[in-house]
Amino acid sequence: MSAVLKEMSAGPSIAQLLSPQSIALVGASEDQSKFGGRLFRMLLKHRYAGKVLPINPARDELFGLKTYPSLEQLDATPDLVVFTVPADKVLEQVAHAGRLGSRGALVISAGFSDAGEAGLARERQLLDLCGSYGMRVIGPNCLGVISAANQLVLCSSPILEIDELPSKPIGFVSQSGALMTTYFDRAWAMGGGFTHGFSVGNQADLELCDFVDFLIDDPATQVICSYIEGVKNAERFRATARRAVAAGKPWLAVKAGRSSAGSAAAFSHTASVAGDHAVFEAVCREEGVTLLNDMGAMLLLANAMARHPHAQVRKVAIVTPSGGGGALAADALADQGVELSTFSAPTRAALAQHFPSGQADNPVDFGARSTPDPKPVAEVTLNAMFTDTDTDAVLIPASMCPQEWVDALVDISTSTERPAAKPVVYAFEAGATSQGLRDKLAQRGCAYSNSSLETAIAMEAWKRRSDWTPRQRPERPHGCGPLSALPHGVLNEAQSKELLAHYGLPVNQGQLATSAPEAARAAQTIGFPVVMKIVSPDIVHKTEAGGVALHIANAQDAAQAFERLLANARRYKADARLDGVLVQAMAHGEAELLIGARSDAQFGPVVVFGAGGVLVELLAERVVASAPMHASDVGAALDALPIGHLLNGYRGKTLDRAGVIDAIVRASWLAHDLRAYAFELDINPLMVSRDRCFAVDARVQIL
Amino acid sequence: MSAVLKEMSAGPSIAQLLSPQSIALVGASEDQSKFGGRLFRMLLKHRYAGKVLPINPARDELFGLKTYPSLEQLDATPDLVVFTVPADKVLEQVAHAGRLGSRGALVISAGFSDAGEAGLARERQLLDLCGSYGMRVIGPNCLGVISAANQLVLCSSPILEIDELPSKPIGFVSQSGALMTTYFDRAWAMGGGFTHGFSVGNQADLELCDFVDFLIDDPATQVICSYIEGVKNAERFRATARRAVAAGKPWLAVKAGRSSAGSAAAFSHTASVAGDHAVFEAVCREEGVTLLNDMGAMLLLANAMARHPHAQVRKVAIVTPSGGGGALAADALADQGVELSTFSAPTRAALAQHFPSGQADNPVDFGARSTPDPKPVAEVTLNAMFTDTDTDAVLIPASMCPQEWVDALVDISTSTERPAAKPVVYAFEAGATSQGLRDKLAQRGCAYSNSSLETAIAMEAWKRRSDWTPRQRPERPHGCGPLSALPHGVLNEAQSKELLAHYGLPVNQGQLATSAPEAARAAQTIGFPVVMKIVSPDIVHKTEAGGVALHIANAQDAAQAFERLLANARRYKADARLDGVLVQAMAHGEAELLIGARSDAQFGPVVVFGAGGVLVELLAERVVASAPMHASDVGAALDALPIGHLLNGYRGKTLDRAGVIDAIVRASWLAHDLRAYAFELDINPLMVSRDRCFAVDARVQIL
Repeated sequence: MSAVLKEMSAGPSIAQLLSPQSIALVGASEDQSKFGGRLFRMLLKHRYAGKVLPINPARDELFGLKTYPSLEQLDATPDLVVFTVPADKVLEQVAHAGRLGSRGALVISAGFSDAGEAGLARERQLLDLCGSYGMRVIGPNCLGVISAANQLVLCSSPILEIDELPSKPIGFVSQSGALMTTYFDRAWAMGGGFTHGFSVGNQADLELCDFVDFLIDDPATQVICSYIEGVKNAERFRATARRAVAAGKPWLAVKAGRSSAGSAAAFSHTASVAGDHAVFEAVCREEGVTLLNDMGAMLLLANAMARHPHAQVRKVAIVTPSGGGGALAADALADQGVELSTFSAPTRAALAQHFPSGQADNPVDFGARSTPDPKPVAEVTLNAMFTDTDTDAVLIPASMCPQEWVDALVDISTSTERPAAKPVVYAFEAGATSQGLRDKLAQRGCAYSNSSLETAIAMEAWKRRSDWTPRQRPERPHGCGPLSALPHGVLNEAQSKELLAHYGLPVNQGQLATSAPEAARAAQTIGFPVVMKIVSPDIVHKTEAGGVALHIANAQDAAQAFERLLANARRYKADARLDGVLVQAMAHGEAELLIGARSDAQFGPVVVFGAGGVLVELLAERVVASAPMHASDVGAALDALPIGHLLNGYRGKTLDRAGVIDAIVRASWLAHDLRAYAFELDINPLMVSRDRCFAVDARVQIL
Repeated sequence: MSAVLKEMSAGPSIAQLLSPQSIALVGASEDQSKFGGRLFRMLLKHRYAGKVLPINPARDELFGLKTYPSLEQLDATPDLVVFTVPADKVLEQVAHAGRLGSRGALVISAGFSDAGEAGLARERQLLDLCGSYGMRVIGPNCLGVISAANQLVLCSSPILEIDELPSKPIGFVSQSGALMTTYFDRAWAMGGGFTHGFSVGNQADLELCDFVDFLIDDPATQVICSYIEGVKNAERFRATARRAVAAGKPWLAVKAGRSSAGSAAAFSHTASVAGDHAVFEAVCREEGVTLLNDMGAMLLLANAMARHPHAQVRKVAIVTPSGGGGALAADALADQGVELSTFSAPTRAALAQHFPSGQADNPVDFGARSTPDPKPVAEVTLNAMFTDTDTDAVLIPASMCPQEWVDALVDISTSTERPAAKPVVYAFEAGATSQGLRDKLAQRGCAYSNSSLETAIAMEAWKRRSDWTPRQRPERPHGCGPLSALPHGVLNEAQSKELLAHYGLPVNQGQLATSAPEAARAAQTIGFPVVMKIVSPDIVHKTEAGGVALHIANAQDAAQAFERLLANARRYKADARLDGVLVQAMAHGEAELLIGARSDAQFGPVVVFGAGGVLVELLAERVVASAPMHASDVGAALDALPIGHLLNGYRGKTLDRAGVIDAIVRASWLAHDLRAYAFELDINPLMVSRDRCFAVDARVQIL
């Protein structure tokens, strides 16, 4: 926890900030072209129950309410003060608010850390000032708060022209005010809704995790959605994620910046450094945050989860009025790696009463049923899905058909007398003709989608969440550091391997020769054939430099190779520092892996592993994970990689998978012990045979 | 062309069928619970200009029109007859229609080849009957025709309750009536529309390609959309695709059955065998049909193309009112492999007038502009995009903001005075609050999307289409067959390699030994080290059977290995036929590829190539292509594969890429020459070194 946060921890909670008896609006106006005018009107329109104190030096009255020239003139203390005035006017008024004893400031105004050095200085002043009065800050540079649960709207968005705020037990925290209001509006139009929404802005004081923590504790909220551009504090993020897991509340997240283009855009938007997306993804996976790539899919999932908070969804049944729509939905689910359920015998028997043979399978083609009246068939079909042992959820791609067909399904699945036992998710692909059905679902509080693709993406995330298990607590193996003194700088291969050996990593160490006769002697000691490699801190790609000689079969060849490698190295890079030539036993193996580690600027030490050697660029898929790791988590991650198949046996061969896992675990502990440094570790290849594995080449730098 | 098609080719064209002077409706009714009732009402509602002749034995008048008991009683000849009566009543009435001289039958009724053996027989009778009278058939088991261009609605769908049928120069042919009407409805609601839509049903006579051919010739249609479950005639499909290319009309397609679940669903739907999706994908790629995985994305693309039929779209600029929305759209485009454009200096200079530095980049954050009035900024921004040399299209993720911001962009981009020079595609992520803007776009005939993801998928397809080039005409290399007599059956390795050698494929042939002394002699002749492999038609996985010995260094070892391999083979499979042991030079190489070929039941001979050897299961991505292939098409396909990087040089090594290409070309000619057979060819591995490549193992079977 930062010093500032500690200082402020005595201040009011977010729950207290969201229940103000009175609110002062600095910058209040009736002018609807201004943030302060729209926000004011929306607060009144949505029937805030407390006292509103408009502040505007030019007016005595606004919207029929007595208006004050300045906070100084107030005779009562507003619990919360909202600022929509230009940035350069905020600080003075904040000081007044502090003196009055206000507990919170919501700063809509931009012009702080979003606006260069001068803005950053202003933000620091704001923070100091509020800290000195024990005030908490939301924003600045934010779009405010929409809290249906507390009947508190402090937001200027046009989406608020709606008369009632539909509410579902879902909270939403967003690093983009525009996206928050966009998806509020979308959810409202499609049967969804939220308890509370927070646009966090620059997060000068209260940050995304503070709001997520509030939602975890909020009894009205069951599911948490978030839009993230960059994480402010990695440890806090992990801690909040663990609190969500402990509370049993799904935390769903979409993060901008998976691509370099998206990352640059996010940075230019809120100056949030998006960070290495693979590391963020790893942390979410480790801590049980469900990451999605699509906002619409996240909200659809949240709404489905809100109705079925304890459902585990792995396999899906499709019920559809259109055979074509069912086939496309099955394809979309398969693309996302979600399997269709295999119906049990009782399910098949139940369906067989109403469907011709061959149609009583998954997807169920409702249009092909034998009975004309859709109602009894809808009842039998959905009930069969609800009792089927392999089916976790029902997807209904509602293509065009006589309306009464889907209407029958809607009536059964939204019954209040017999609530649906499993999630039922509708995807309406049609346009205006399906609007009546959409509205019916929305009126009954059931969210729907307009896209089978979006639905399939949501299902994949639900499956991933259902399969999630917390990672195991890592245990340091025997003979695996820590070292009392760590080496520093760019280590050569021999030094790097020495460090690895201290951590119990098997290495193909070899001997360093600094002359041709020494090389010949070393080769004789090690035993032929040997491999010889140039050792130089200035040559990274040894093969490219002609710095590697393989299959050296006798002493004479070894002596000649020494001279040749040195000559090649000088030709490749005239000024390269040459430490000598490493002579090693010629390594054979059935597979080559890569193990890397480094320090992520935000999330600390991580390990990376995957296919190595010549496969590095061909099998680019790798695991990234926080260090240290438990062996069973390493094993599970390896199994999910293509190269994992090779370790698990390929055409009758099984390789030293246990040795690979142990090597990765040990590398992860080395990474952990190096956490205070900017370091990079590369083992490539780790040569794996049937009964052993060892590092053939390694590079470590510790800065 | 089938015999039936030939017989019918004298019949009327689809253009003639779509311009009937009079239409008889067999099964006409006023009952809106019946297909015949709804279809009748929709025909009248949408103001068909010709004469309508209802047929219903129980009524004298329907909807105020004189009604006849049977076609027999008509005193005039209806050009077209529509059947909605049960299947068992259709044939008799068709005969009457034929005798009257009607030219076309639209059979909505199900119960033909969709309904088992009896139905299939009925469909054959229908076809014979129509053929004998020179009548063409649409359907049976279809949802009919919606032709806005011809003011002809012969469809019962509830989507037709709309008063006017919005029309864009896009045609739609669908193997699912439900999906056709679903996406008509969706398009109509979102600013799109169609000239003609055809639900092809069982395609007893007129099939999908007939309708596509009609649309290619139709001057009102610029873009063709299709939903496909299975192709009826492969050669016809290719020919139609070539006609579309020649006419410069994009043919877009979505096909069900990419996954096994989707394929089974499509089959149970219309009994269309989905076929091998990889082969269909290859054929589409070869013939210039643009295949997509998502119906919504296909229609969005069609609508954008309809406005800009000649646009080549490769790089995209994002203009957005929300920094977050821009970042997510950039990520979505990157996921699809679509690049953002890099703005030229003049573009940057133009933007710099209105945006703070750092925000005048792609994505352009419209919300960050310095000037409050959005109109001039919208004009400058979009015009800068229209003149930017690297930008081909503009994507506007229209997140929530004051409506006038996006309104300004909409006004500029839809100006009729100065039409947008490049495609502008809007993605409205919000709900009801954006409806006014959606409606404005729709009124101006501009289609939009509600999803950045869908938009990104559409852009990827547009890019793929823009990059498309027709494949080169293959040329048979010298010394590459054809053979006057082909071998048959399951060939062993030696026989397989002999066949390959006849096609000029380099092979590592070796000698077959049938005794230990023979093996020793063969090894001495070839030169050590050698590799020895069991030869048996009953043992496919030789390694697994212990049937391979590597690194044999002398004659004695060769003799011993012979006995060991035979013993292993007998242990593995007691009754395996053993032809002997193949002795070959031990092959070394830097990369292993796989080349396969087989005959696709629909599309004929195909070749398959990709990573081989131990990589087969790790690098599963392969190219599938129709045989024979031109060398330059092989080269382009190889370069797109991960294994292609290896051939093109990895850490300074270049391999015999030309040799690999030549080997694939030769294998493709062998496949071509085997086209009349059910055959399978497997070369794995093709060992590749720096200056040569050769088939180390090969299996061919020709049945």
